[in-house]
Amino acid sequence: LVDRAVTQLITPGTVVDEELLDAGRATYLGAVARGGGDAESRDSDAEDDTDTYGLAVVDVSTGECLVTGADRALALEELERLAPAELVVGPDCDLPDLSFDPMETPFEPGAFDADAARETLSAYAPRPDAVVESDAELRAVGAALAYAEYAQGDSTLEYVTRVTRFDPREFLQLDATAIRSLELFESRSARAGSTLFSVLDETACALGRRRLEAWLRRPLVDRDEIEARLDAVDALCDDALARADLREHLSSVYDLERLVARVSRERADARDLRSLKTTLDRVPKVREEVGTGSDLLADLRDSLDELEDVRDLVGDAIVSDPPQEITEGGVIADGFDAELDDIRGTAEAGREWVSNLEAREQERTGIDSLEVGYNQVHGYYIEVTNPNLDRVPDDYRRRQTLKNSERFYTPELKEREDEILRASDRADALEYDLFCEVRADVATESARIQAVADALADLDVLRTLADVAVANDYARPEFHAGDPTDEHGGIHIDGGRHPVVERAQDEFVPNPADLPRGSVALVTGPNMSGKSTYMRQVALGCVLAQVGSFVPAASARLPVLDRVFTRIGASDDIAGGQSTFMREMSELTEILHNATGDSLVLLDEVGRGTSTADGLAIARAATEFLHDEVGATTLFATHYHDLTDAADDREGVFNLHFTAARRDGEVTFLHSVADGPSSSSYGVEVAQLAGVPASVVARARDLVDETDPESADDTEGDGV
Amino acid sequence: LVDRAVTQLITPGTVVDEELLDAGRATYLGAVARGGGDAESRDSDAEDDTDTYGLAVVDVSTGECLVTGADRALALEELERLAPAELVVGPDCDLPDLSFDPMETPFEPGAFDADAARETLSAYAPRPDAVVESDAELRAVGAALAYAEYAQGDSTLEYVTRVTRFDPREFLQLDATAIRSLELFESRSARAGSTLFSVLDETACALGRRRLEAWLRRPLVDRDEIEARLDAVDALCDDALARADLREHLSSVYDLERLVARVSRERADARDLRSLKTTLDRVPKVREEVGTGSDLLADLRDSLDELEDVRDLVGDAIVSDPPQEITEGGVIADGFDAELDDIRGTAEAGREWVSNLEAREQERTGIDSLEVGYNQVHGYYIEVTNPNLDRVPDDYRRRQTLKNSERFYTPELKEREDEILRASDRADALEYDLFCEVRADVATESARIQAVADALADLDVLRTLADVAVANDYARPEFHAGDPTDEHGGIHIDGGRHPVVERAQDEFVPNPADLPRGSVALVTGPNMSGKSTYMRQVALGCVLAQVGSFVPAASARLPVLDRVFTRIGASDDIAGGQSTFMREMSELTEILHNATGDSLVLLDEVGRGTSTADGLAIARAATEFLHDEVGATTLFATHYHDLTDAADDREGVFNLHFTAARRDGEVTFLHSVADGPSSSSYGVEVAQLAGVPASVVARARDLVDETDPESADDTEGDGV
Repeated sequence: LVDRAVTQLITPGTVVDEELLDAGRATYLGAVARGGGDAESRDSDAEDDTDTYGLAVVDVSTGECLVTGADRALALEELERLAPAELVVGPDCDLPDLSFDPMETPFEPGAFDADAARETLSAYAPRPDAVVESDAELRAVGAALAYAEYAQGDSTLEYVTRVTRFDPREFLQLDATAIRSLELFESRSARAGSTLFSVLDETACALGRRRLEAWLRRPLVDRDEIEARLDAVDALCDDALARADLREHLSSVYDLERLVARVSRERADARDLRSLKTTLDRVPKVREEVGTGSDLLADLRDSLDELEDVRDLVGDAIVSDPPQEITEGGVIADGFDAELDDIRGTAEAGREWVSNLEAREQERTGIDSLEVGYNQVHGYYIEVTNPNLDRVPDDYRRRQTLKNSERFYTPELKEREDEILRASDRADALEYDLFCEVRADVATESARIQAVADALADLDVLRTLADVAVANDYARPEFHAGDPTDEHGGIHIDGGRHPVVERAQDEFVPNPADLPRGSVALVTGPNMSGKSTYMRQVALGCVLAQVGSFVPAASARLPVLDRVFTRIGASDDIAGGQSTFMREMSELTEILHNATGDSLVLLDEVGRGTSTADGLAIARAATEFLHDEVGATTLFATHYHDLTDAADDREGVFNLHFTAARRDGEVTFLHSVADGPSSSSYGVEVAQLAGVPASVVARARDLVDETDPESADDTEGDGV
Repeated sequence: LVDRAVTQLITPGTVVDEELLDAGRATYLGAVARGGGDAESRDSDAEDDTDTYGLAVVDVSTGECLVTGADRALALEELERLAPAELVVGPDCDLPDLSFDPMETPFEPGAFDADAARETLSAYAPRPDAVVESDAELRAVGAALAYAEYAQGDSTLEYVTRVTRFDPREFLQLDATAIRSLELFESRSARAGSTLFSVLDETACALGRRRLEAWLRRPLVDRDEIEARLDAVDALCDDALARADLREHLSSVYDLERLVARVSRERADARDLRSLKTTLDRVPKVREEVGTGSDLLADLRDSLDELEDVRDLVGDAIVSDPPQEITEGGVIADGFDAELDDIRGTAEAGREWVSNLEAREQERTGIDSLEVGYNQVHGYYIEVTNPNLDRVPDDYRRRQTLKNSERFYTPELKEREDEILRASDRADALEYDLFCEVRADVATESARIQAVADALADLDVLRTLADVAVANDYARPEFHAGDPTDEHGGIHIDGGRHPVVERAQDEFVPNPADLPRGSVALVTGPNMSGKSTYMRQVALGCVLAQVGSFVPAASARLPVLDRVFTRIGASDDIAGGQSTFMREMSELTEILHNATGDSLVLLDEVGRGTSTADGLAIARAATEFLHDEVGATTLFATHYHDLTDAADDREGVFNLHFTAARRDGEVTFLHSVADGPSSSSYGVEVAQLAGVPASVVARARDLVDETDPESADDTEGDGV
């Protein structure tokens, strides 16, 4: 009855099929463009540096469109962070190996042409040049949109209601290495789900889940914005009832972002529209529970447009439990359209007439066993059994012969049948037209629905952060006011815990952190004693705080960091063929060049892939450089006990250590941090416990005592 | 027609379906029993130590049955080496976590009872107690066989023609760690197929492939046996033509071991028997090519029974291209059985009569269009079209009415039809009986066929070793004669290469090894410079030599080792939760306790999981212990340059190093070993190349020079 042209390209970045999408993750199509590389076609007035890169992503399932630009290094980091499933790469971009694995799709270079890109973007932003800040950005976003249009058959992307430009420097920078080594989203071990995201993810709806991921990927650096989130979380923490109700209401909220995209793309069915209505029905209840406990909550409350017009339109137009198919009727409610009601009345009358026919004909013919029936092939019929055939009236026409009976029709029955069929067909077609009109009307309100979706997503994350804070006894972090160079402006945490590890252990030993701004803490202690966990928990606390979350600690006074760097234990990739040590040095270089006084640096065992002397020398030189030149707050875990001497001649370098005690013939890790360098001959203890021959143990102990006479005293002590 | 009871249990260890089996690998069902643990039911005269373990495996697809016994540690090693797919564990065995993952099947403890086991074993060995050397072994092999019997429906395993006892101490001991770290069968990296096995596996048939694996898993320690294999390889090396022909002939050899098992288990079909014949047809040609170039070859040649009786039986009995099914006729050749020929004659005569019927009846009735046909439901019929029905004779009986014709039969046709069917049925049944007889006759020759299979397997491995030796320019190793304590009796290799790595690289730099018996070589040098490859190639050379293979070297004089130990780079399992260092110490303990003067020990970076001081002390103490107490020949790769001092006060401890050179701003690994400790500040060079800030590099260089003034000279040199 209805023609629909299907010209849809399905690729990793343009897939919109619900079943292929992960509701909790954004699936981006991305484009990368390089500034000034577009020599033939570039504007004469463009003054772009060729070192500027533009990066744009479109989430075709939600309509989110982001664009950013930065120098090559930062742009690549941002690319890793966004990790688009599919990527179109502009001329001259020359990307390195990426840590994720996007499908790289060749796309016409012309789409990256600045004029063409401006033309494409103008369909989504009235003043294209006002959205972007460089030629590279313009060309990236133009190409991304052009490819998305191409993938859906060269039509405008109705579901893209806004193009958002952001500057990566406006967020705490976490590169792919840091995101991985802090295990924000992926666990490095086999214990699936043991990530920061999985610990925090108490979101009630898919909107919230994606938003939580976005917040975690891009913690804030603007103190006011952070405090606004913290105020909101704080207010929600105080109201358990409101939180529970909010969770309840939000859990029945549909994925409005993807829903609105389907509506705009004319792919929404009647059930989608009903889901929209169900969700909008919840909005007043959500508003009620939000309260005005903080400015941000009040703002969000105000953003919760109930969209009565949309809700009523859908409520009036669509039946409450519509079928999957939208072309076969049963979709539009009675009373919504007079013509439809009229046609349905005609069909109904015909069916009524037929349903009374059996009784009438039984009476007329005197045949009690006469039946009226319907089948798909022959339509309506009157069935008379063979013994009664002699009583059949003259106006019966034979339709079909069966073994024990004959089937007939009458001219009037035929006429009624045609009438019913015509009316049904017309009703189906009219319903489809009406449905498309309603859907189009809803589509015009995309921006408002998107705004509601935004507010619901934020609310879900804020209440999740409050739930997690209450459930796990997190504390609200304080940020230092005023002068950023204040030497007291470092990281000060009391009773800090690792948010992920504490969940996996029965007893987690909390540890304080007192790291003055620009200080370097050298952390020594045996493997498994807790060094890595400690360093990570400090970093995770800072990240959480800048997300706007409470932190797993008794209390925390923190600076606003600009970046978190990690150089944490690459595994000994012996057979991999790549030099672990070279990689390690490259990572170190990255840190030494890019860290600032506002950065937090975690180093774990620098220099292991070379001789002890070289490794130690590099570690020490790097430590001094970080302290003297960079001024980044640094945690450096090391087995080089000689490195601890570095603390002797620099006030800002100090030692922390973890230790193990020998109890009942077992080595027990105490998991608590203490001042000063580790001096235990723990390694020899473990060797003894592992059964290494006594003479070897004794000799090893002698050798340790020779090199470090001070430690001779406490060999048998509690390990400190 | 034929009833067959199917009562077969399919489990990982008892599967015999070809498609589920890997032709190149043995799939074992195993049983482990502990000595003396069987308190209630044990013989009063058993004096088994409870520390003795028995281990038995059955390969149900080939009938191979092995039994061994040893102390717990050695038995567990052997278990890891055999890696049965399925395991039944006797009472009190209490196995630790295994490095492979067998299915552990609960089985009645009674099967482990010594008397029950003796009873079970007696079906396979006339004097059960003569086969085994301990109660534990008896109980293990009894239980393994009992379980295999149970799995096939409680009948004797006809295909198990012998039970072989071996003593693990009669082979070079390679524990699971060594097998893994030397990458004999599994690559530790992603480069699939880069294992010693894959380099050697030029076998032509599945028999050879499994035998090669068995030889690699259990290299020899008997010098005469080793030399016998080497003589054979040597002789084959000299005759390229014979090798090529042998390969050709062996490549069409079927998997006789599995075939013979199927025959015994009454699961072989007619095609299997024809495959047996095809293979036996090859035997004379193989004999011809084997020659008598060495004693072992001459022996193998003698073992190549052509089995003329079996070959002729199958050739006479089975048609050359039999069908898959053995119950539906067409299997037995004409002339093999008079009765079958007679029955076939009857059926043939009947079919002949029918095929002439059409012409006869056309003539008799004058109906030219009359046809004789056959269909599955009604049998034979005579078909007459409707216009000719008036000419149908009286003796025609109607069988079926069609639209345009009628089908008839005559009493005689019916009779003939019955006769044909009866004869066919009888022929099928008789063929099946005859086939079963032939198969049973073949089964009685299982042992002889097995012996041929053995000889073919050995031959295939020997020619493979010769092929590999010639293709890759391997040299025949020499073994030291006489006094094993001879101090010159160490490992002496000229121009040694790593058999696997050299295949993956364009230019492999050969290196010598001169390791006097009981010496400890400390190997220093940067990561990726070739330390690991070097240590492994020395070990692989020794392993290959004791397998009976030539070795990748210009020349090699070697001792016969009793064990190869490895403690090679466990990866930094940071998130895994287990203490790498504890595991490392356990492995070290294992080595220090079990190595002997005849062992080769490879150590790579001992003590990295603890402080440098402790790690160094343990490494040094272990080195001294290995040298002074154990006397094992040792290669110890380390980044502890301080350890190199250990060479100063012990003659048997010396230094080797690998180095890198800086050329055109790149670090190039020279890959060649040199005497003395590494003294290059390579680590600092790499840091500089990686872009570490100049001031950091300069400071690091100063620090290195301070600690080790000697190295200051050649910092800028060629890296030595």
